[in-house]
Amino acid sequence: MGDVRQRNFTKGHGTENDFVLVPDPQGRRALDSDEVRRLADRRAGIGGDGVIRVVPTHLADEPTVRAQSGTAAWFMDYRNADGSISQMCGNGSRVFAAYLIREGLETGGDFAIATRAGVKRVRTTVDGFAVDLGPALVDESDDTREKGFNAVVHVPGAPDLPGLRVHVGNPHTVVLLPPQHALDELDLTGPPQVAPPPADGTNVEFVQLLGPGHLAMRVHERGVGETRSCGTGAVAAAAATRWWEGASAANSEWMVDVPGGRLTVNFTETGTAELAGPAELVADGTTEL
Amino acid sequence: MGDVRQRNFTKGHGTENDFVLVPDPQGRRALDSDEVRRLADRRAGIGGDGVIRVVPTHLADEPTVRAQSGTAAWFMDYRNADGSISQMCGNGSRVFAAYLIREGLETGGDFAIATRAGVKRVRTTVDGFAVDLGPALVDESDDTREKGFNAVVHVPGAPDLPGLRVHVGNPHTVVLLPPQHALDELDLTGPPQVAPPPADGTNVEFVQLLGPGHLAMRVHERGVGETRSCGTGAVAAAAATRWWEGASAANSEWMVDVPGGRLTVNFTETGTAELAGPAELVADGTTEL
Repeated sequence: MGDVRQRNFTKGHGTENDFVLVPDPQGRRALDSDEVRRLADRRAGIGGDGVIRVVPTHLADEPTVRAQSGTAAWFMDYRNADGSISQMCGNGSRVFAAYLIREGLETGGDFAIATRAGVKRVRTTVDGFAVDLGPALVDESDDTREKGFNAVVHVPGAPDLPGLRVHVGNPHTVVLLPPQHALDELDLTGPPQVAPPPADGTNVEFVQLLGPGHLAMRVHERGVGETRSCGTGAVAAAAATRWWEGASAANSEWMVDVPGGRLTVNFTETGTAELAGPAELVADGTTEL
Repeated sequence: MGDVRQRNFTKGHGTENDFVLVPDPQGRRALDSDEVRRLADRRAGIGGDGVIRVVPTHLADEPTVRAQSGTAAWFMDYRNADGSISQMCGNGSRVFAAYLIREGLETGGDFAIATRAGVKRVRTTVDGFAVDLGPALVDESDDTREKGFNAVVHVPGAPDLPGLRVHVGNPHTVVLLPPQHALDELDLTGPPQVAPPPADGTNVEFVQLLGPGHLAMRVHERGVGETRSCGTGAVAAAAATRWWEGASAANSEWMVDVPGGRLTVNFTETGTAELAGPAELVADGTTEL
C-alpha cells in the first residue's frame, strides 16, 4: 500500500486540461512516480492529465530550479499522469497560478512562477491568467521558406497535408486544414503519420482559419492521443498561421478555439508568446492514495 | 453557474467502476441531472461512472423507495454519469456500503440498503462486501434450450459467435469465447453487433473459462463502451456459463476476473445471485460544482 499519510489536494482544469494539485509548503513530500500514477488514475484515483506539487522554490530538489528562487517564490513541480517528469505545461501553469492566488501565496496582478523550463511571468486577466511561454520557433530552413512547409501529415480518410514544425519548448507539427475539410470529421483516434518522422515524436495540431486572428484547432498529443486542449499547441498553431500569413499578418493576438474552450495567444514585442485562458479550481479534499 | 453552495463528496470505486458519493443526511439536496453531469465530468468535474446520493430512506422522493424504510435505513440514489436515473448498480452498491460502514451509519456484518430496484441485502466479507442482486434469468425458450444460444454476436475481425441473453435487472448477452481466440485481442472499440437486435440494447460480455468456476471477462456496456468492470455483467457471465454446463455445473460460486479486478458470484439456495468484491474509498472533499 505504500505511504498512507493523508495528503491535501485540489482538482482544477484549464480548458478541460485537468490536474491534481498537491501542496507541499515544507518541501517534505516529494512525489514518486507510483504516487503520481495513483493520484492521476481516473478510475482508481482522483484523476487528471497531470499532477502538480506546489512547493517553495528554495526547497526544490533541482539546483536549476532553486536558482530561480530570487525571482519566483513557488515552484510548479509538474508530472505527467504516467509518472514521468515534465518541463512545463501551459494550461497547468494557469491552474497553478489560480491556486497560488486563491491561497494567498501570491497577491497582485503580476508575478513569476518557477518551472523546470525556467521562470515564467504570469499576469491576471479579466477571465483567467496569461503566462509567457517564451519564443515559439518555426523550424525554417531555406527549403521551408521556399515551399511553405517542412512536413507531410497523413490521417485516415484525408489526403496528405502539408505541415509546419514549430518548437514551443516541446515539438509541434501544425497543419492548416483546407476549408473543404471539416475539422470535426478528422479521424484522430490514432496518431497522425508525419514524414519525415521526428526522432522524439511530435504533437500534431490541425487548424482552420475562422476569421482574422481566429483559429479552430484539434490536437493529437504525442504519447497521449487526442486531448481537449493543449496550451503549447495553441501557441504553435497561432505561430504557424502567422508565419504562413507572412507580411500580411496584422495580428499579434490570436484566439484559438479548442474542444475544451477558448485560449488566446499574444505575440509580445520581445518575441515571446503569451498564452491566456481560464483556470478553474473545482474541488478540494484529502486522500491517502 | 447555478448553485454555488458547497457539497461534501467522497470518491470511491469497486474494481475500477468509480463513483462520486454525496451525503444528504437531511434529504434537502436532491440532485438534478446538470449537477450529476458536472460532478461526473472527468475533466471539468470530479469524475466518475456515476453519482450516488446517500440519503435516509424515509426522506426519498419516490414512494416506492420510502416504503423500504422499515427494512433499509439508507437509500442509494444512483444516477449515471449522463444524469439519467438508474435502478441499481452492482459495483456501486459495495462502494455505498463501504461508505455507510466508514461513517458509522451502519454497523455489523449484515444490513440492507434501499434502491430503486428494491431492498438489497449486504454482508461484509474478508476483503469487501457481498450484495444480493436477486435472480439472474436466462432467456430460455424451447428453441434456446435445443440450440444452446439465442443470439448471434459479431465484432470486427472475429467470426460470428453464439450468445445467450440473460437478465439481471438489466439486459445482457453473454458470449463464451472459444479457447483459440484471445480475449484481450477482441476489438471492443465499437458496440458489438447483436442479432436479433434487442429493442433496448444490451450489455455484451465476452467470457473465457480459465478453470472450474473461474472466468475471465471483458464487457461492452450499452451506451457507454468498454468498461473496466460491470457487476451485473459478471453475474450474467457466471449464470450463462453455469447454464451451458447444465447438470455438470458443480459450482455455485464463480470467480470472474475483469480488467479492473476480481469479482465473485455466488448462486444462493434461494435462487438469487450474490455479487462480492472490493470497495475502496479514495478521497474526501468539498466542491461547489
